[in-house]
Amino acid sequence: MKLGADSRSDRQTRVEILEQGRHISLSWPDRPSSRFHAIWLRDNGHDSKTRDPGSWQKLVTLHDIPAQTRVESATVNEESGQLELTFYPDQWSTCIDTNWLWEHRYDVDEPKEPALFRSNVATWSANFAGALPSVSFAHAKSDPQALLQWLSGIDHYGIAIMEDIPIRSESVLEVVGLFGFPRQTNQGTWFEIKVESNPINLATSALGLQAHTDNPYRDPVPTLQLFGCLQNEADGGESIVVDGFKAAEVLRQESPDYFHLLTNHSAQFDFHGGGQSHLRSSKPMIECSPEGQVVGVRFNNRSSDAFTGIPFDTMQAYYEAYRRFGELLSSEELQVVFKLRPGQLFITDNTRVLHGRKAFSGGTRWMQGAYADKDALRSKIKVLSRELSPPE
Amino acid sequence: MKLGADSRSDRQTRVEILEQGRHISLSWPDRPSSRFHAIWLRDNGHDSKTRDPGSWQKLVTLHDIPAQTRVESATVNEESGQLELTFYPDQWSTCIDTNWLWEHRYDVDEPKEPALFRSNVATWSANFAGALPSVSFAHAKSDPQALLQWLSGIDHYGIAIMEDIPIRSESVLEVVGLFGFPRQTNQGTWFEIKVESNPINLATSALGLQAHTDNPYRDPVPTLQLFGCLQNEADGGESIVVDGFKAAEVLRQESPDYFHLLTNHSAQFDFHGGGQSHLRSSKPMIECSPEGQVVGVRFNNRSSDAFTGIPFDTMQAYYEAYRRFGELLSSEELQVVFKLRPGQLFITDNTRVLHGRKAFSGGTRWMQGAYADKDALRSKIKVLSRELSPPE
Repeated sequence: MKLGADSRSDRQTRVEILEQGRHISLSWPDRPSSRFHAIWLRDNGHDSKTRDPGSWQKLVTLHDIPAQTRVESATVNEESGQLELTFYPDQWSTCIDTNWLWEHRYDVDEPKEPALFRSNVATWSANFAGALPSVSFAHAKSDPQALLQWLSGIDHYGIAIMEDIPIRSESVLEVVGLFGFPRQTNQGTWFEIKVESNPINLATSALGLQAHTDNPYRDPVPTLQLFGCLQNEADGGESIVVDGFKAAEVLRQESPDYFHLLTNHSAQFDFHGGGQSHLRSSKPMIECSPEGQVVGVRFNNRSSDAFTGIPFDTMQAYYEAYRRFGELLSSEELQVVFKLRPGQLFITDNTRVLHGRKAFSGGTRWMQGAYADKDALRSKIKVLSRELSPPE
Repeated sequence: MKLGADSRSDRQTRVEILEQGRHISLSWPDRPSSRFHAIWLRDNGHDSKTRDPGSWQKLVTLHDIPAQTRVESATVNEESGQLELTFYPDQWSTCIDTNWLWEHRYDVDEPKEPALFRSNVATWSANFAGALPSVSFAHAKSDPQALLQWLSGIDHYGIAIMEDIPIRSESVLEVVGLFGFPRQTNQGTWFEIKVESNPINLATSALGLQAHTDNPYRDPVPTLQLFGCLQNEADGGESIVVDGFKAAEVLRQESPDYFHLLTNHSAQFDFHGGGQSHLRSSKPMIECSPEGQVVGVRFNNRSSDAFTGIPFDTMQAYYEAYRRFGELLSSEELQVVFKLRPGQLFITDNTRVLHGRKAFSGGTRWMQGAYADKDALRSKIKVLSRELSPPE
């Protein structure tokens, strides 16, 4: 019966060689077809001469692959689900899983307006206050699923709370140890945040602090910051956090010109550490990937140096954009405010979420901080996800 | 006498208020004049209410400064060299050193073609072999001037050699301690490079390795890498280094299109660490600042994942550009080759200079590596420069 035959053939993955083997077209059941170039397929072969089976590292360089590479033959093995390929001119053969090809296809219509953030970013504003990702230290330590959920929260939202960390010095490093490694700097692997009489850094005085990202004068900037609270008997001193990605999103909606000014010009940041250190960087306040996705925010009035990299004819407008971005970051509509109790810790993605605090007086406010990096956190998410996923 | 009067007045710094106080023009003796905006001057005041005299951190936010700020009065105090300013509408007064203003002027003609690198970068090719910056460990440790010169060499060229490091485990960390801090990763604060029978990472096998930057799958990438040689009785195994900035420069000269392809599309890098880690990043092979300056190179065939972020219609050309960049990076004209002796170490700027090695066999080849970051190195250069400069 004709219908039956068609229906059966629709369940097959089919391949067609196009443009004299310069690329192929692959059609999966119930999915749109997708094209792949010969050079891409050859570079991504799944054979053991192309990729080390153990480490999955690539064993060939592009130099080992003829520039004029074309697909000579292509067959789908329905049983194994492999695309079997032979290439001209060197008769190289390889096979690639067709599901892997679906997952790694690149022949997709470009969106009219590319997404402003990578896909797993969820922006937030003031009403996020009751929904901050949270876990207890003991739970995160003993239950991989709870740890995975907490780390994924940081990856999505750029902020999370931890409850009941040990009330002892350096416990912030124990939290870092749950997923990664401290970023050691001239401040050490961890640092005290207490009032000092003649502070080198304003963060240790009792003044309120406008929401900011830490250490914008460092390159590379620490990508995660943690603050653990060991004692908090002061009046005031509430913590403030704000999603810099949300502010960037609002700024772009309100004024593409302002957004463009802050992404297309580098600001200068500077820190003199009492003769012992002198750190400087030149980076845009809103950093985009070449594809136009926002990948980082730097904002810190205290360590902003004189902006000298911006042309005279642009400076007035730049300051207007800088002012508006600061207003958004300081607005009650975007900020979440909470007061840390002893044993509470918060962690932020320091390339995205700004933190600050209200002024305080009387009583002791004792916090300890540390920096760490996101690559280890994201690696931990992937490893835990795989370990905890049900076997197929 | 008229001539004398003119001559005297030319020796003075003069200020003029322009555009109803929106900006001023400052004329120094024997230098071109330069304009400064009211808002910029107000934001950069040198008074103790604007900047903390101890930490030099900024005490005001832009929100504290009226948006309609203009210069109401401006006078140069010839004795003190200060520009004395009063602002409308809040009668704020401040003063700023006129030499500081000269150093921080931004009213400059934009160059027709902006420099491809920051000003203190000097690119190099194969004939740099005999001129690599070098110092002995003992000299660097005991003589701040020698250490400063060595660190400045790394900053200029992205590579340096150190002689006579202690032949003992972890001595590479002693070298890091001369200027900064190790970047701890899942590989530890330092790591062994020895042949292993079933290596997770190809760098520990005896194969030759195409020149590459380390850990492109990390974000942030370690910005400095160090290799110390403790034993080298193998045949072959010469180290290869190549200036990625030089290759980027040549690529842009040869083919602006290829350069554009590698700067304007992100490549994907990936590393599976035997079930214990899974690191991924998406970054361009040649990374530029918003101003178009090359600020980083990532190149590593072994950890290149399938490129999926590049549109189908661009992929063929992208591979051509990738191939040509790889050819340049592998060319004898650009590469410097040397064989490390026990006690020798080399350090590279891992965002710029690629390293590789030739295959080796027989005998033991024992290296230890570590990662660190450039911000601390540049800070050390600034601190040493100030300490060693003759008092004024």
